[in-house]
Amino acid sequence: MTRAYNFSAGPATLPETVLRQAQAEMLDWNGVGASIVELSHRGAEFMGVAAQAEADLRKLLSVPDDYAVLFLAGGATTQQALLALNFAAPGQVVDYIVTGHWGKTAIKQVKPYVDVHVAADGEPGGFHDIPSRAGWTLSPGAAYVHITANETIHGVEFRDTPDVGDVPLFADFSSSIASEPLDVSKYGLIYAGAQKNLGPVGISVLLVRRELLERAGQPRADIFNYASHAARDSMLNTPPTWNWYLLGLVVKWMLDEGGVEEFARRNAAKAELVYGAIDGSGGFYRNQVVPAVRSRMNIPFFLPDEALTSRFVSESKAAGLLALKGHKAVGGLRASLYNAVPVAGAQALVDFMRDFQQRNG
Amino acid sequence: MTRAYNFSAGPATLPETVLRQAQAEMLDWNGVGASIVELSHRGAEFMGVAAQAEADLRKLLSVPDDYAVLFLAGGATTQQALLALNFAAPGQVVDYIVTGHWGKTAIKQVKPYVDVHVAADGEPGGFHDIPSRAGWTLSPGAAYVHITANETIHGVEFRDTPDVGDVPLFADFSSSIASEPLDVSKYGLIYAGAQKNLGPVGISVLLVRRELLERAGQPRADIFNYASHAARDSMLNTPPTWNWYLLGLVVKWMLDEGGVEEFARRNAAKAELVYGAIDGSGGFYRNQVVPAVRSRMNIPFFLPDEALTSRFVSESKAAGLLALKGHKAVGGLRASLYNAVPVAGAQALVDFMRDFQQRNG
Repeated sequence: MTRAYNFSAGPATLPETVLRQAQAEMLDWNGVGASIVELSHRGAEFMGVAAQAEADLRKLLSVPDDYAVLFLAGGATTQQALLALNFAAPGQVVDYIVTGHWGKTAIKQVKPYVDVHVAADGEPGGFHDIPSRAGWTLSPGAAYVHITANETIHGVEFRDTPDVGDVPLFADFSSSIASEPLDVSKYGLIYAGAQKNLGPVGISVLLVRRELLERAGQPRADIFNYASHAARDSMLNTPPTWNWYLLGLVVKWMLDEGGVEEFARRNAAKAELVYGAIDGSGGFYRNQVVPAVRSRMNIPFFLPDEALTSRFVSESKAAGLLALKGHKAVGGLRASLYNAVPVAGAQALVDFMRDFQQRNG
Repeated sequence: MTRAYNFSAGPATLPETVLRQAQAEMLDWNGVGASIVELSHRGAEFMGVAAQAEADLRKLLSVPDDYAVLFLAGGATTQQALLALNFAAPGQVVDYIVTGHWGKTAIKQVKPYVDVHVAADGEPGGFHDIPSRAGWTLSPGAAYVHITANETIHGVEFRDTPDVGDVPLFADFSSSIASEPLDVSKYGLIYAGAQKNLGPVGISVLLVRRELLERAGQPRADIFNYASHAARDSMLNTPPTWNWYLLGLVVKWMLDEGGVEEFARRNAAKAELVYGAIDGSGGFYRNQVVPAVRSRMNIPFFLPDEALTSRFVSESKAAGLLALKGHKAVGGLRASLYNAVPVAGAQALVDFMRDFQQRNG
């Protein structure tokens, strides 16, 4: 068995040490005679796993005490809908900054509930840049301002936190959470599907300033009420325990490896390698994103034609470099360089890119 | 490593052969160089796993072709809320038959959206019986009639499908799906959290007559729209892939073992063993449910006092019989006998019960 380097945009590669631990514990967790996935979420064993995962995540991300941390079933899209239900009055205005595909998705989910105002839109510029803060048309009285911290498909990333005044800033950090130090206190709410930087698919994490949970929001089922989830430590109903457990192992691995400062270094090194190979290719490889907002996590890049692109995908796969095909919305190629992709993986990709160019350039 | 007999009400025990396969494939699924949890849900590998799981589930449950099968993130509680949003007009009347704790939960989730009419309520009788069909006060023009096929806490199970006329019957089958043959065509909709009879926690299954998906329902986010999920083969967003994969392994195991007819035999045998031990104990063990509606899946039972109950829980655990403590809502003891609990497990429990009585009776 050989593990390949896996550049999937998500569900994405996991640390091998984490997978080995999950493998070892699959039939018997901690000597209890059952797997963790077979234990009650309300028993002491899983409650311990859950509490440790929260404590470790709080440590990893330096989450202030006045923020609740929720572990929720499903992905970020569900949270996108729940933002409006929990924090905006029916029909209230909400501001969205659109810098790629996922910003548009976020709007689609809230349209039935609120008055969406697009305060800045990168689409006319092909999502190659983030509209400058000075030009944003923020609404007085908005319930929140929403940004997508990193756009997984278009490869555009906020490199600093925009100042939006007194209106709380909400951010989709699905594809860049824990990739570098983050000042949580600048955000009212941060949410992330786990399947990129935090662990397995099937669970999302939400960090929210507790005072925001007092907002009335809109009529909604109790299961859609973040305050109810917070009051019950994310065990309002049966949570996805195995996914939570695996997330906990990944978070612990990140702490053991040196925390977000260390991953910021590795991620910068990986991104520099790949962007360097693109920019140094004399136009054979192309990335159109303005350098100041290029994503460190997801690098879309393009070859001169479709035939070369197909050959790149199949030859790289044969060489043990998985999932380099671009998203169908933009085509081309894409390398995702989340925390669990080692620097050696980025180096292997770059070596392959240079070799491929030599043979085909 | 010794695997204990695990009587957890859910998340519940899984077949050892399934866990062994998941363990073997944890670092490398099918020779692709990555775990299934690390692969894109849109890639050929996972799409194959997902399609096979659906085909096998359709075969296992004899699902008619005019029913959609959805695989959805999270548990049954979320589906309880979505029933109203998808199938009832705002404020429309819906009929609920309450036969235990989970029927009450189902009502809680839809109250913000519809006019809930409790057409029959077992609570005045302590949930020891199911109110007879003749006494149900069904509403003309109801959007649907909702039942809980098996009540996990109160141990009450519908032993046949009630006739509710032309209004579609919706049923929560979380804790009894695939435990015996089922005529899906008698229901408009069946939903089930997977973590009892179908596999791991974190994923739910929904069977729905396709024509019902044409109902307008209520304004809602796209992610809350069953028709959207159906149109995208349950890949409207990133689904919980690992949970789906493990569910597929469990369903295949059930087919390999002989399907629902075989599990109906085993489940009847297990229930007969445990109820036999209770009823033959001369009142030392007690179960108050009317025999005709006793659950084959979850058997709550009681000892003469609290001290004996605590002793039973700790001694049974030490004897390798896990999770026999009753739910806090009713106390006492509970044995859950889902498909993956072997007959030998029920026999071991009964042997322990007789020994315990001899020593303490």
